[in-house]
Amino acid sequence: MIHQQHLHFDCPGRGSREITDAVAGVVRESGIATGLCHVFVQHTSCSLMICENADPGVRTDLETILGRLAPDGDPAYVHDHEGPDDMAAHARSILTHTDLTVPVGEGRLQLGTWQGVFLWEHRSHRHRRNLVVTVHGE
Amino acid sequence: MIHQQHLHFDCPGRGSREITDAVAGVVRESGIATGLCHVFVQHTSCSLMICENADPGVRTDLETILGRLAPDGDPAYVHDHEGPDDMAAHARSILTHTDLTVPVGEGRLQLGTWQGVFLWEHRSHRHRRNLVVTVHGE
Amino acid sequence: MIHQQHLHFDCPGRGSREITDAVAGVVRESGIATGLCHVFVQHTSCSLMICENADPGVRTDLETILGRLAPDGDPAYVHDHEGPDDMAAHARSILTHTDLTVPVGEGRLQLGTWQGVFLWEHRSHRHRRNLVVTVHGE
Repeated sequence: MIHQQHLHFDCPGRGSREITDAVAGVVRESGIATGLCHVFVQHTSCSLMICENADPGVRTDLETILGRLAPDGDPAYVHDHEGPDDMAAHARSILTHTDLTVPVGEGRLQLGTWQGVFLWEHRSHRHRRNLVVTVHGE
Repeated sequence: MIHQQHLHFDCPGRGSREITDAVAGVVRESGIATGLCHVFVQHTSCSLMICENADPGVRTDLETILGRLAPDGDPAYVHDHEGPDDMAAHARSILTHTDLTVPVGEGRLQLGTWQGVFLWEHRSHRHRRNLVVTVHGE
Repeated sequence: MIHQQHLHFDCPGRGSREITDAVAGVVRESGIATGLCHVFVQHTSCSLMICENADPGVRTDLETILGRLAPDGDPAYVHDHEGPDDMAAHARSILTHTDLTVPVGEGRLQLGTWQGVFLWEHRSHRHRRNLVVTVHGE
């Protein structure tokens, strides 16, 4: 059994937001009890992560850390067509995840107590982001 | 066909350990000849990697590298409730992998000659870690 | 339904190359309309990424960024048997992706407009790289 569905999110600018409920909704609609749920972003300047969902400070610190690893407006970049956050966004996408797979058991995402699924926008300006969620199993 | 099983590991503190045999055991039990094996950690402060399994020095150097990218006790962190390794552990988890998928062929994990599956604990103190392994195929 | 196939690429040295067409060919051969396509490299010193496929400058900058995060010939490395690019290659593999999964819909990879699948060689010298592509669905 396989169930595929598209999700769309409007991201106001750089930052991460929890999308666990939307993904869990697709799992529920699929009617699949045991299997896997795959989430994919159709973009190269935003990404996905599974992160601690209790203290938003964790995600503040992740921005700090990624800001060091892939800084905006680095003079060494040759790709800067769309501004100082352009190349930084591609690099942050590569260093994190374009796709994630979460186990499904008893009809629910088998996330740990403190795990949430997050969509992480890396561009400074507003973008509409398209995701493909595929649930398969029995 | 789908087979899902939980594995548990006691990790004495920061460091990585090979879990290829345990994962391969789940594949054997599944009886699946051709398909995929998905491994998932239900935590946000440990992670998974596929790494060279011949020289443990590789994993020593990975600790050195991750220690620079996501240092312990960085004064810039706002999230430090559980000590200097708390935020560093979340960041190391995001920069590596919460889930991995390995192909299964001829009833075995289709790893390359030098590849092993490793569980990577990022916290300094002892933790019990729960994994969900899902094998599917025919 | 499941379809598994091996692909081989000769990589002349460090750098990334698009392999979207080869992966799409496996999806076509599989005859699967809706499902998932999993790509796996059987090595620990090359990796996979989904990256912007319009401006090659993006991949030039990714080499610059990875060169800072996992530099060649760092005196701190204990693993350097095969030269200054040896440990750097393992670290770049861990920080990027050994496996990727892309949704399949209407018989095609459901990549976004600017997304391509890339094989990323991290060693300086020529290597032959083996990939396992597994397509499943209906």
